[in-house]
Amino acid sequence: MSRTHRSPAQPSPGIEARFRLRVQRGPDIAIGPGKIALLEAIRDHGSITQAAKEIGMSYRRAWMLLDELNRSLRKPATASNQGGTRGGGSLLTAEGEQLIALYRDIERRAEQAASRQLASLVKLVCRP
Amino acid sequence: MSRTHRSPAQPSPGIEARFRLRVQRGPDIAIGPGKIALLEAIRDHGSITQAAKEIGMSYRRAWMLLDELNRSLRKPATASNQGGTRGGGSLLTAEGEQLIALYRDIERRAEQAASRQLASLVKLVCRP
Repeated sequence: MSRTHRSPAQPSPGIEARFRLRVQRGPDIAIGPGKIALLEAIRDHGSITQAAKEIGMSYRRAWMLLDELNRSLRKPATASNQGGTRGGGSLLTAEGEQLIALYRDIERRAEQAASRQLASLVKLVCRP
Repeated sequence: MSRTHRSPAQPSPGIEARFRLRVQRGPDIAIGPGKIALLEAIRDHGSITQAAKEIGMSYRRAWMLLDELNRSLRKPATASNQGGTRGGGSLLTAEGEQLIALYRDIERRAEQAASRQLASLVKLVCRP
C-alpha cells in the first residue's frame, strides 16, 4: 500500500522506510493508505466485491470504509454504475481519480525530497 | 508527535494532513513516531520515568519500546547515566541525537516538498 524506500546500495536487506500519509478530520482519519488502496482496487476492478477480495478485506469492511470516505469528502469519490450488461458495479468519480493522484503524488514528492536522509536513517538500523 | 500541515488560507478548520514515517525491520517497526517522541522526552527530561510521564505512557511500556529500539539499532540510542547527584538517569548517545535529527529533518523535507499538494488534498475534505 505505502511506497517504500531502499537506499541505492541496499546496505540493509529487509529494512525499509515508509511514509504513511493520513488526513485527519477532527478525531477521525478521513483519508489514509487503506482507503486509497481500496479506491485503486475499485478503479481497477469496477466493483466493491472484487476490490475487497483483491486487497483481502471483507465486503462489509470495504463498504463501511467507502461510506466513511464519501461522507467526509466534499464530493464522493465513487458512484454506482447500475447500467450496462453486468450492472451493480462501482466506478470512480473525477474527484476519486483526483484524490488517488494527489495522494500518490505527495508520497512520491516526499520520498524524492528526503531520499538521501531516508537512506541514512535506514543505515542506523541493523539487520533482522 | 507528527508534524501537521495546514494550507496557508486554512480553508478547513479541524482538517490536517500528517505524514508518519516508519522504518520496518522485517515484520517489526524499528523506528516510528512513538519511539522518536520517547527519545525526545528522554533527551528533555534525563530519565525514562519522567519521559514516560511526560508523554502519558507507562514506565513498563516506555522501557520495552526503548529496549526494542536499542536492539534494532547498530548502536544504542540511549545510555544509563549512573553517576551524579541524582543518579539512575538516562541520556541520549550521539546516535540517538542523530536519529531524532534525521527523522525530523525527513518530515520537514517531505512536507515542504509536497506543501501545495497537501493543501489541495485537505481541500477535498469537508468540515467535520
